[in-house]
Amino acid sequence: MIQSFHIVAPDRTIAPALSEKINNLSKPKGSLGRLEELAMQIGLIQQTLSPSLRHPVNIIYASDHGIADEGVSKSPKEVTRQVIHNFLNGGSGVCFLCRQHGFEMKIVDGGVDFDFPSIPRLIDRKIRKGTRNFLYEAAMPPEEMERAIRYGADIVTDCHNEGCNIVSFGEMGIGNTAASSMWMTCLTDTPLIDCVGAGSGLDAAGVRHKYNILQQALDRYTGSRDVREVMAYFGGYEMVMAVGGMLRAAELKMIILVDGFIMTNCVLAASRLYPEMLFYCIFGHCGDESGHKRLLDFLHASPLLSLGLRLGEGSGAVCAYPLVDSAVRMLNEMHSFQQAAVTKYF
Amino acid sequence: MIQSFHIVAPDRTIAPALSEKINNLSKPKGSLGRLEELAMQIGLIQQTLSPSLRHPVNIIYASDHGIADEGVSKSPKEVTRQVIHNFLNGGSGVCFLCRQHGFEMKIVDGGVDFDFPSIPRLIDRKIRKGTRNFLYEAAMPPEEMERAIRYGADIVTDCHNEGCNIVSFGEMGIGNTAASSMWMTCLTDTPLIDCVGAGSGLDAAGVRHKYNILQQALDRYTGSRDVREVMAYFGGYEMVMAVGGMLRAAELKMIILVDGFIMTNCVLAASRLYPEMLFYCIFGHCGDESGHKRLLDFLHASPLLSLGLRLGEGSGAVCAYPLVDSAVRMLNEMHSFQQAAVTKYF
Repeated sequence: MIQSFHIVAPDRTIAPALSEKINNLSKPKGSLGRLEELAMQIGLIQQTLSPSLRHPVNIIYASDHGIADEGVSKSPKEVTRQVIHNFLNGGSGVCFLCRQHGFEMKIVDGGVDFDFPSIPRLIDRKIRKGTRNFLYEAAMPPEEMERAIRYGADIVTDCHNEGCNIVSFGEMGIGNTAASSMWMTCLTDTPLIDCVGAGSGLDAAGVRHKYNILQQALDRYTGSRDVREVMAYFGGYEMVMAVGGMLRAAELKMIILVDGFIMTNCVLAASRLYPEMLFYCIFGHCGDESGHKRLLDFLHASPLLSLGLRLGEGSGAVCAYPLVDSAVRMLNEMHSFQQAAVTKYF
Repeated sequence: MIQSFHIVAPDRTIAPALSEKINNLSKPKGSLGRLEELAMQIGLIQQTLSPSLRHPVNIIYASDHGIADEGVSKSPKEVTRQVIHNFLNGGSGVCFLCRQHGFEMKIVDGGVDFDFPSIPRLIDRKIRKGTRNFLYEAAMPPEEMERAIRYGADIVTDCHNEGCNIVSFGEMGIGNTAASSMWMTCLTDTPLIDCVGAGSGLDAAGVRHKYNILQQALDRYTGSRDVREVMAYFGGYEMVMAVGGMLRAAELKMIILVDGFIMTNCVLAASRLYPEMLFYCIFGHCGDESGHKRLLDFLHASPLLSLGLRLGEGSGAVCAYPLVDSAVRMLNEMHSFQQAAVTKYF
């Protein structure tokens, strides 16, 4: 059964009142730049002049990729499971960012190629021990894809039920920049060469090999450019789950914090299914992975940060959170010209 | 008496150990981008592999400018004192940012053209009720300038004595983008036209008028390009105090968070006096004021943020603080490959 979502763009009736509130704060008009744009977006999403951020969560979907067998990543496949332990022990890059900014972390095993013992904080939604190798066959059949969308969405429902209204998405899965490049080239018609990058740290020869493998896979692909077909053929379970999660978040009118190259590809796919989901997205970071800037431009997205991060895990999205918080505080805490008794000279 | 400072570049002996620690954290090498650069800089400043940030303070120096009489600002002069009340009441733009990020605010009256009643939280260092109009004469004589440097520096000493090791500088003073443009053109030889912008919101005709006034002032100026002479002739008391504050901060090996166009001009002047002070500067934000990007390039500075802010008050510097905090947390909290039992594949 195909999972469907009811996603609508925010009602803009409140926009003039939001504008008026923002322009009457005691500052030169427009002088808080991007914070003012964020305040407008969040006010629209929450349909209020006094928005709030509650219980932020960084969801990390993890899975392995059959294509990793072709040597398209600098890292061996076992790194996926090792890094999951590092998440659970609080030692990875995104962990200190989550502690710093008050994010809960949810770690979801969507299809890691490893038999974990039962671990309380690891959410088991394993569909299979890794996808199939898309050089030879579809990474997943349609049934698995629909299940991944549903699993991904259900995690966000849980977050929402726990009081969360802002969610960031991250991923872990050796090989997932390769899978993302395939989504990007198929869904944007960007030449593959412009979609392929170094991932976790390939050198020039490594990138060339990765490109050659992906070009072969593309040449052999006989499917259509339909988004569901592309997602299933090349996707990772963690990527499809993120798409499901993003769609559920938009359906529930939650703020979606978007991370790097892989998660931006998930936004791309999600927005092909439901274009209105873009109204709920705040792009956190423009990363170093080749193709990310190009993909952001394709989506007309201007991320808040550009710090040369290329870690994934949701790190760029979580890093941007204080700016989102600032925008909300601006609306709630800053005095108007009248309150401040400042001459409105602007 | 000319105030002097003892400022030295950080000892680099510890640099290889810092590099090793950063490169052994469980992430692809370099994948935390600017955070890794910040970690190196802060480790060098504090001479430790485990730095810490203590008691951050945003110092706002405020003063009026004689040149404001020539209509070079969109805002009337009384706005300076009005905004000071807004600072004290916690209602201005930088106030919510300071609350968000745990900054103490110190507000210093360096020369506001208003007789404040005694207000406990307003630090009275008034040199004069505004500078002289530099279209006709020096804004301040050398004696006042030296006093302003000393006053500005002493505030930072107080911060240091109270346990602060990271300080951001902001300013309030109608007319101070005009004064800053004069410092920039004189100290960098950039044509005046490229140093003049809209300030708090001039339209094109307003910018033209401002430029014409400043060009007249420059044509009439018969002094040298010596940094002290330029500072005194065109400066605001708040700007000179910020220079003094920055130099004292560098002397005390504190981290200096740099804000927008005006504060970057203060870094320019300070670094002409003591080039080594630049090692202690973290540039927070590239603002919208014309000339700021050019000045940052002149200083080889790459700010952390670019959000279109043009509020001043230290807002862009305080906004960048969470990234500085992230860099420190990375060094202290992230697990090494060995601790994390992750294959070091990078």
